[in-house]
Amino acid sequence: MKKSFHPIPGAVVAPKGFQAAGVFCDIKRLGTGKGSSKGRKNDLALIVSDPPATAAGMFTTNQVCAAPVKISIPRANSTQIRAIVINSGNANTCTGPQGLKDAATMTRTAAQLLNCREEQVLVASTGRIGVALPMAHVKKGIHLAVQQLNPTRQNAHQAALAILTSDSKPKEIAVEFLLNGQTVRIGGICKGAGMIHPGMSPSGRRPPSTPHALHATMLAFLTTDIAAEQNTLQRCLEKAVAQSFNRITVDGDMSTNDTVLLLANGEARTAVLHEKSGIHLKRFQEALNHVTLELAKMIVLDGEGVSRFVTVHVQGARNAGEADAAARAVANSALVKTSWCGGDPNWGRILDALGYSNAKILEEKIDVAYAKPGSRSLTYSLKRGQPTRTPISKLRKITSQPAFDLYIHLNQGKGSALMYASDLTEAYVDFNKGE
Amino acid sequence: MKKSFHPIPGAVVAPKGFQAAGVFCDIKRLGTGKGSSKGRKNDLALIVSDPPATAAGMFTTNQVCAAPVKISIPRANSTQIRAIVINSGNANTCTGPQGLKDAATMTRTAAQLLNCREEQVLVASTGRIGVALPMAHVKKGIHLAVQQLNPTRQNAHQAALAILTSDSKPKEIAVEFLLNGQTVRIGGICKGAGMIHPGMSPSGRRPPSTPHALHATMLAFLTTDIAAEQNTLQRCLEKAVAQSFNRITVDGDMSTNDTVLLLANGEARTAVLHEKSGIHLKRFQEALNHVTLELAKMIVLDGEGVSRFVTVHVQGARNAGEADAAARAVANSALVKTSWCGGDPNWGRILDALGYSNAKILEEKIDVAYAKPGSRSLTYSLKRGQPTRTPISKLRKITSQPAFDLYIHLNQGKGSALMYASDLTEAYVDFNKGE
Repeated sequence: MKKSFHPIPGAVVAPKGFQAAGVFCDIKRLGTGKGSSKGRKNDLALIVSDPPATAAGMFTTNQVCAAPVKISIPRANSTQIRAIVINSGNANTCTGPQGLKDAATMTRTAAQLLNCREEQVLVASTGRIGVALPMAHVKKGIHLAVQQLNPTRQNAHQAALAILTSDSKPKEIAVEFLLNGQTVRIGGICKGAGMIHPGMSPSGRRPPSTPHALHATMLAFLTTDIAAEQNTLQRCLEKAVAQSFNRITVDGDMSTNDTVLLLANGEARTAVLHEKSGIHLKRFQEALNHVTLELAKMIVLDGEGVSRFVTVHVQGARNAGEADAAARAVANSALVKTSWCGGDPNWGRILDALGYSNAKILEEKIDVAYAKPGSRSLTYSLKRGQPTRTPISKLRKITSQPAFDLYIHLNQGKGSALMYASDLTEAYVDFNKGE
Repeated sequence: MKKSFHPIPGAVVAPKGFQAAGVFCDIKRLGTGKGSSKGRKNDLALIVSDPPATAAGMFTTNQVCAAPVKISIPRANSTQIRAIVINSGNANTCTGPQGLKDAATMTRTAAQLLNCREEQVLVASTGRIGVALPMAHVKKGIHLAVQQLNPTRQNAHQAALAILTSDSKPKEIAVEFLLNGQTVRIGGICKGAGMIHPGMSPSGRRPPSTPHALHATMLAFLTTDIAAEQNTLQRCLEKAVAQSFNRITVDGDMSTNDTVLLLANGEARTAVLHEKSGIHLKRFQEALNHVTLELAKMIVLDGEGVSRFVTVHVQGARNAGEADAAARAVANSALVKTSWCGGDPNWGRILDALGYSNAKILEEKIDVAYAKPGSRSLTYSLKRGQPTRTPISKLRKITSQPAFDLYIHLNQGKGSALMYASDLTEAYVDFNKGE
């Protein structure tokens, strides 16, 4: 099925009716007294839908949350969104009333230039916390971006560059597929790198079922030319994020700015998707799941100092919640993550992390196995709590690869969960230890 | 008050009626095929009380727990303990029925040589997980230790050396003080280094109030020549551990082997302490708090790759539980800990960690300040959620020291909590990435 999501160029402008721009307006230098205009790395992006679009959003559940998040949450529930304005270099977090005013000004500036109401513009920021935005520069950047707006893949790429912080490369995707006989598209860009362990919800409020402390800054912006009712689109995004961005962890720290926004402008002229759209809704969901998962994986792979990508599968928990708790405990354990850095198949540390998780664990029932990415051929290091006779060299052959799958079976029930995780390296510490 | 806990030499044999020994019996080499007898680092310790002693114990709440923990938990509630036998190099964890048999055999071997019942001997282990103990070597070691038993400070030091794993140095303490007019003593040894974030309880069961995931291997063995009723002694140990070993974190990983044991043999001929002993009980509690806190601090200071010791004070939470959650979130955040490594007073990462903790946070109420260790002169970096005008150079002067205090005031209530934490360094990753 997935193979039929045909990859195409263009990222956020691949769907019909979208334009983009990415520009440099020197946000970082003024904000911190650092950086230089020599680098001229883009720091302001604009994504515009020509017709008003239906929007859906997911936001950080961190109680300390950025001004742009506070502005965007009430606006995202809309069928009239025209644009998203995004800056990097400054998170506009812990900036008080001035921060809220600045975030609103960003949307108003874009709105005036695009001839719409400011409520039709969403906003996101990423970068340093606690420094006021240099608004003269930001406004100049928005003017520049509006001037440069166009629907070319070059511009989409400039926008993808503009949202990056410590990422080493831009993260872009677009797919084309058939929906009810018509060709439609989904495009997206995202950024990650550090503070990656998102726990997003539609309202920014932590749902009671959210596993204890979720934790990233990640931003993702998705566009599509299908048409959908707002609540249906929102539900699709929630499901897509639950299996992608909310399943990744680099360092277990949840950011104050995490934001995923999806705009659907209907320019492909499909029938409007709603809760009863059956097979067509399912098809769109599969495509959105695919796009978000691919973007999420790019974030883990490009995490600060990451040298290994590990997919943690937990199976046989008493229920899904406990499977999730077990998978997160393993994926966030400093000792497990450093053992991955060394390519060490250390099952002792895995059992230790399982043991302190909030999942019910019976040591004598646990299986631990390794596999090449996506392979169903498992090599067991532990069966029913006891080490197997598999030579360590054979296990190391798998765990010393840049990517591998870790399977943990608790043999107690049918609950399963999955996390996409990175190792913890000296390079991560080096990157994060100073300014 | 504390100054009157007069430090004396002798560690666990400083109190009257105790003997100790620490020997080399080559546990690690046989267990793993590694190591060499050239190093001849002690790996087996024995602590003996001449008269049967009243015991108290605290054990890991990890659901995956070591065989010696399973053996010692039901025995610790006793007034007849004669000895504790401890090995390093092998944790005897995830070793199945054989592991339980081996742990019992260790106590039986010691008991036979000491002419007591095996139930009068407690046992603890630390080291690699999942490898059966080389019992021939262990038995030889126990024989050797019993032969060498004596009450000299040299022997106490050899025992302190024998319980170490990746620790860089032994951790010993003893104090002398007046209790109801009589001179009494408390002595102790401990080990730590990695997997340090203990969450111990008397039964090894997680109490409902335990903050979510607690996490270390740390072992501590305490001796005293006071006399106390068993339940009183247990309660004193619980209180002492709550303000010391359960307040430290190196890496947020809770071990399968954490154990604290206290033996009180009454050889100082004091009146037996009980719940109604008033001021005398209070005095003993203060001394025990002091001894356990000093040992706990030694563990953090000697953590794997640790370059900085940070005391995290959270005040003004709605209640003590939320203060604890906030302090643990900050003390365990990878991003906060790496910023400490760089001596960076990064309050943004602190707010981020507070925001994803289970404590109620109002960003606009938070104060963040730094101080020299123990000093009441606070330098604020954040007041009511807003950065102060304190120059970064002034803050850095404090945070680039080997130790500093971090004060976080939530300004919402009267809940307070404290954590003793280390930074996260490249050296920690390097140490833990391989075998």
